[in-house]
Amino acid sequence: MSATRYDVIGIGNAIVDVLSHSDEEFLQRQKMPKGSMSLIDEKRAEAIYNAMGPVVEVSGGSAANTIAGVAMLGGTAAFVGKVKNDELGHTFARDIRASSVAYSTPMAESGPSTARCYILVTPDGQRTMNTYLGAAQDLTVDDISVDEIRSAKVLYLEGYLWDPKRAKEAFVKAAGVAHDNGRTVALTLSDAFCVDRYRKEFLGLIRNKTVDLLFANETELKSLYETGDFDAAVEALRQDVSIAVVTRSEDGAMVVTRDMTETVPAFPVERVVDSTGAGDLFAAGFLYGFAKGLPHVDSLRLGALCAAEVISHMGARPERNLRDLANENGLL
Amino acid sequence: MSATRYDVIGIGNAIVDVLSHSDEEFLQRQKMPKGSMSLIDEKRAEAIYNAMGPVVEVSGGSAANTIAGVAMLGGTAAFVGKVKNDELGHTFARDIRASSVAYSTPMAESGPSTARCYILVTPDGQRTMNTYLGAAQDLTVDDISVDEIRSAKVLYLEGYLWDPKRAKEAFVKAAGVAHDNGRTVALTLSDAFCVDRYRKEFLGLIRNKTVDLLFANETELKSLYETGDFDAAVEALRQDVSIAVVTRSEDGAMVVTRDMTETVPAFPVERVVDSTGAGDLFAAGFLYGFAKGLPHVDSLRLGALCAAEVISHMGARPERNLRDLANENGLL
Repeated sequence: MSATRYDVIGIGNAIVDVLSHSDEEFLQRQKMPKGSMSLIDEKRAEAIYNAMGPVVEVSGGSAANTIAGVAMLGGTAAFVGKVKNDELGHTFARDIRASSVAYSTPMAESGPSTARCYILVTPDGQRTMNTYLGAAQDLTVDDISVDEIRSAKVLYLEGYLWDPKRAKEAFVKAAGVAHDNGRTVALTLSDAFCVDRYRKEFLGLIRNKTVDLLFANETELKSLYETGDFDAAVEALRQDVSIAVVTRSEDGAMVVTRDMTETVPAFPVERVVDSTGAGDLFAAGFLYGFAKGLPHVDSLRLGALCAAEVISHMGARPERNLRDLANENGLL
Repeated sequence: MSATRYDVIGIGNAIVDVLSHSDEEFLQRQKMPKGSMSLIDEKRAEAIYNAMGPVVEVSGGSAANTIAGVAMLGGTAAFVGKVKNDELGHTFARDIRASSVAYSTPMAESGPSTARCYILVTPDGQRTMNTYLGAAQDLTVDDISVDEIRSAKVLYLEGYLWDPKRAKEAFVKAAGVAHDNGRTVALTLSDAFCVDRYRKEFLGLIRNKTVDLLFANETELKSLYETGDFDAAVEALRQDVSIAVVTRSEDGAMVVTRDMTETVPAFPVERVVDSTGAGDLFAAGFLYGFAKGLPHVDSLRLGALCAAEVISHMGARPERNLRDLANENGLL
């Protein structure tokens, strides 16, 4: 096993989020399934943007949020994802580098513009996402640097990568390189609808041991095993993957391995302002702890703390210094 | 007095804010006087942007924030300010219209790009601002619609308008139109450094009765009268202007007229995340109440509530529905 340069390297869709508060009626009028992530084309993107309220723009992207979180906790981290050489592309690139994340994926010089996600946040703090994938669709196997992948302890992949046409080849190549070098491959299931689109492929990746560490929330897990019975889904998962981290919103989170289950409660929050990024930042906390060799239960606690920070404000990138926050709470 | 179409019309610099958390050392390295607003050129803007951390982009501009707040409280409102026909210009225009504010200032087709304000937020919640005025400098007397000004109960002007070369002519024209139609003219002093730049002119505007209603915070007021004695400044102010609203951060706020002073405490907040927009939103609450004919002390309370909302998150545009918030707190 060669020397490591990074604790975690992530591959995902490089997206800038455009967030706005909205009421339930807006979602109904726009026929948006509440809480879901829908893929949209450029025309629909423009229609949504024109209809939504005043916005806040913040860099996003599921794996990118996670990687930014790992770096903010003090981990070494890198990200791979495609933007175009346009204004939003530069915003994304600048922001992730400003979070101390190594980022060197070449920008697309032609083709669709940088990906945006239009996010409607309802008064209950739930977020409903509409993603225009744009340039993120053009991530290919050529964007994967063997050298970079093998120098990271953990390779982290988002399920959403199954949406762009050719990103899954990049995904599989990267996983191969990681395993050839004795690294851990982690996957997040991303979204219950995403699981619904690619259930067979995700189960295949888990069962053929392409994935060592799986992140899922309760809904995604039930969708994966097509059951309404949470405990049954957990037992199925236990047989299929080495380590699974399952998040249950206000009911806390658990780590599941072949022979044990450990749980932690949710970290208390004053008010859930915007749940965007809750899963992403939970993963950040856990991955940081995992890469540093902390006991699983401590990694879970870090995850719960990071998730609590990100749901207490708009946007999926942390606003408070996560390392200071972890110190204050005696977790680091 | 003709019929009114708007409760408040505001004229100000049309700016998009680019906010980031920073530590005190960053301000020292960048030689930024903490808590101030500095005017910068495009080269310096780029240098700051490249040096600062991950950002959040939100529409801003002092008077624009106030006007958006008035509309969010349920008032009818209009805004006048100059952007360029570029990406940020469209963002600004879309956002203010999405807040139900009438906005019809023609976009500049050439010249400098839309104004940006680079805001560094320190862990104490203080903000330090660096403004590239860009297209906002090109607001002229031709952008003032007599018809629009005379149809608003209150004309609200920001002191920062003294910075662009020709905006003060627009300011004076608008004030004349307002008074010819029996309207109230309000001015915010904007910033202690701004007062320092234009003290004589601001005192002139107040003393020659161009301004009926003045907004100032404690520091601006002391700067205006060049005194360290707050009570002396208040007494001077009482002689100079019909109505003055003075804000004192956590020490609350007061309304001062020739023969009375009324005070309210600050509205309690869990944690000051970012003080950007505190004064702007205080003005929004007061102006809404004033336009609706509420007792001054109730208008002050509305101001304190709106200020509390905006300092509890990043950015100077409210995230919660201000009208709902006012209802919940029994203020509307």
